Amino acid sequence: HVYYYACTNKYDLIPYDLTTYYRYCRQRWNIRPSEMSINTLNPIRAIVDGMKLTPNPEKPMIALSIGDPTVFGNLPTDDKVLQAMKDAIDSNKYNGYAPSVGYQKSREVVANFYSCPEAPLEAEDVLLTSGCSQAIDLAITVLCNPGDNILVPCPGFSLYKTLAVSLGIQVKLYTLLPEKSWEIDLQHMESLIDDRTTCLIVNNPSNPCGSVYSKEHLQNILSGEPCSPPGHSCVLYLHDQVFPGCTYQSMASLSSDVPILACGGLAKRWLVPGWRLGWILIHDKNQIFGKEIRQGLVKLSQRILGACTIVQGAIESILNDTPQEFYHRTISFLESNSEICYSELSTVPGLTPVMPSGAMYLMVGIAMEHFPEFQNDVQFTERLVTEQSVFCLPATAFEYPNYFRIVVTVPEEMMVEACTRIREFCQRHYRTCSQDSNELDQ
Amino acid sequence: HVYYYACTNKYDLIPYDLTTYYRYCRQRWNIRPSEMSINTLNPIRAIVDGMKLTPNPEKPMIALSIGDPTVFGNLPTDDKVLQAMKDAIDSNKYNGYAPSVGYQKSREVVANFYSCPEAPLEAEDVLLTSGCSQAIDLAITVLCNPGDNILVPCPGFSLYKTLAVSLGIQVKLYTLLPEKSWEIDLQHMESLIDDRTTCLIVNNPSNPCGSVYSKEHLQNILSGEPCSPPGHSCVLYLHDQVFPGCTYQSMASLSSDVPILACGGLAKRWLVPGWRLGWILIHDKNQIFGKEIRQGLVKLSQRILGACTIVQGAIESILNDTPQEFYHRTISFLESNSEICYSELSTVPGLTPVMPSGAMYLMVGIAMEHFPEFQNDVQFTERLVTEQSVFCLPATAFEYPNYFRIVVTVPEEMMVEACTRIREFCQRHYRTCSQDSNELDQ
Repeated sequence: HVYYYACTNKYDLIPYDLTTYYRYCRQRWNIRPSEMSINTLNPIRAIVDGMKLTPNPEKPMIALSIGDPTVFGNLPTDDKVLQAMKDAIDSNKYNGYAPSVGYQKSREVVANFYSCPEAPLEAEDVLLTSGCSQAIDLAITVLCNPGDNILVPCPGFSLYKTLAVSLGIQVKLYTLLPEKSWEIDLQHMESLIDDRTTCLIVNNPSNPCGSVYSKEHLQNILSGEPCSPPGHSCVLYLHDQVFPGCTYQSMASLSSDVPILACGGLAKRWLVPGWRLGWILIHDKNQIFGKEIRQGLVKLSQRILGACTIVQGAIESILNDTPQEFYHRTISFLESNSEICYSELSTVPGLTPVMPSGAMYLMVGIAMEHFPEFQNDVQFTERLVTEQSVFCLPATAFEYPNYFRIVVTVPEEMMVEACTRIREFCQRHYRTCSQDSNELDQ
Repeated sequence: HVYYYACTNKYDLIPYDLTTYYRYCRQRWNIRPSEMSINTLNPIRAIVDGMKLTPNPEKPMIALSIGDPTVFGNLPTDDKVLQAMKDAIDSNKYNGYAPSVGYQKSREVVANFYSCPEAPLEAEDVLLTSGCSQAIDLAITVLCNPGDNILVPCPGFSLYKTLAVSLGIQVKLYTLLPEKSWEIDLQHMESLIDDRTTCLIVNNPSNPCGSVYSKEHLQNILSGEPCSPPGHSCVLYLHDQVFPGCTYQSMASLSSDVPILACGGLAKRWLVPGWRLGWILIHDKNQIFGKEIRQGLVKLSQRILGACTIVQGAIESILNDTPQEFYHRTISFLESNSEICYSELSTVPGLTPVMPSGAMYLMVGIAMEHFPEFQNDVQFTERLVTEQSVFCLPATAFEYPNYFRIVVTVPEEMMVEACTRIREFCQRHYRTCSQDSNELDQ
């Protein structure tokens, strides 16, 4: 294409001497990035890079925006996890190439860890990937052709759209209902389905919402009662961290026929997102995916191979030897911080936090009509940085305006301080609506 | 698409009741893998899986086919390399997400390691990737659109074609000349260029040839003298292991204007291919790639993020503290084994080994007319397994029939034994050509 643009029109003007011709071309290089790279969009970066984030110099910055549990040092992974890595290194067994889908033994370990009687898994049902991102990438890529569409939650993590759009796959956003703890608006979802819908993405527990779906809701999604889901495969992205009071129900265990590719990884539960070990679990009781989808996944995995072999070698010990106490401590901390944040912000004028049931996020609604100085959540959160040095991600980044997301992994005292500052900010900018004041006047 | 095929034609026959409709669809699931997954072809697997590999039970198997230096345990990585990993784990600094292009410090270390006065590099010129495969994937993906074509060496490693074809990019194979130590047939390469040629891939040192190009040859490729190269960007895939007698010349250091994406990684030189740390070095003296290609690469890197953070954290010590003795020992071993293999096979009737100058491979030509029992290199190498339990990869896997590739990383005694068996095999099956025998008769 470059060549064409730069030179071809002039071809007949140049003597048929390739050396001269190339020299001519050289002077007119015009290398442009591919359509795919141009179409790989990162809305979070686009929004954050466009914000003027100038903290108040008198207050230390508190970033509640970073979905990385390691940044504050208060949530280290377990020593067993680190020891497992060092043992894998010392063994000298994990330096060579692994199969592109991962070591057989490592796949078996993951299968055993996630297997349950209602949704049994074997090694062959597991592919190890370079982080959960590659798992999602492979799942979307194997199921969809350009021109197909996928159903994606809104609010939802931006990666699904980033990956799909770069592959020429259309994204249709289905609405989640904050008043129903972010359950799916099944009627809305159903209305989006057409003859090119190839996959439904369900994110449970959810980023950015922290919601965890009940058994009944998952059954409704799967069974077509009362509303009908797409008769298509399902990609499930799971964090699998759920607060103690809440029961996590695996979607696969409830499905009688819908085939599911469940994507997950070490990142959030074992608190090592940088290690880039993810997986796809293939749930396909009725052989609806059959051999073809499995082979498609294997073929795609051969493009760049998968996860670092040291982490693969460590996975057996990581999954089997990490003490329950570690998981418990992490999740209790996240629940406690969520409760602090929720109860603090519940009494802040103009804000409506939604209590999460898992993961490490919490969404907060902004009653924009009470903050007339700001046009939207982006301006609101921008000014929150300017005045209070607290940064929350505006939910426009999740295509869900007038909310912001709080990451609850920060140390408790930071969470308390952040909430105090958010309260101060809102009290300062909150305006009684003119409608309301009229009513009061009467 | 599935939906359409399975149901839409019948839509008007079904009462407008979506629940019934979906139930109907369920009975007719027909989920098919995407075109991209179908088009992700792995010729090595296709050929090897199609071979009947039944070793002679009386002789232990010797696999000279595996391009993984770790499999025999005779080429361990250096202790410093392992210690660097353990230090990175103990530091607790490398568990979180890194930037998608890699830690700034790690990029800087790689830049410094490969920088030279003629081709200086800074951190911004380096992207860290999940292995060299992802580096090549990103490089091809950023430069080419579907319908474009790339020039790829023949014989050459199959991954370029696998990646390109799955993206709808056409591959044109340019011929390497065994009689000139696998130099590029520049006239042939030139004849392939058209107005959709967007990138030339040069692999130096070469897999499967082990060839290392001279300064003069690289200048010829770059400068268009005596033959003209494409006026396009260049992707260079380097193993950077060269035998002591030979000088490795970086292509980037010779280029005055051709912009180059040089792809490499830890795999072969540090003998840890499973760790999946690769890189792209952007050489763009005259700002021909400019910001656009750099940004395109950054955007593509955000799709699945890159290398494991522990390896990224270890890279400074790996590159700076690994003793020269380690590199020297490895390369001396590879050279010595290559010489053994070359000199042994040089005197085998019907074989023509080509002495390599680097990397860890050696190509051997088969004078097929002297082996009338076998139709091609695949049959030849298949029978070599059946009779002698020696497996060499038929070069049909590199689109270059009537050769086979030997990996020279096996222990010396295994190499000697393998050559003895290959000699026995050839002596047994070698036939004087009828043409020749006529001549002898006269």
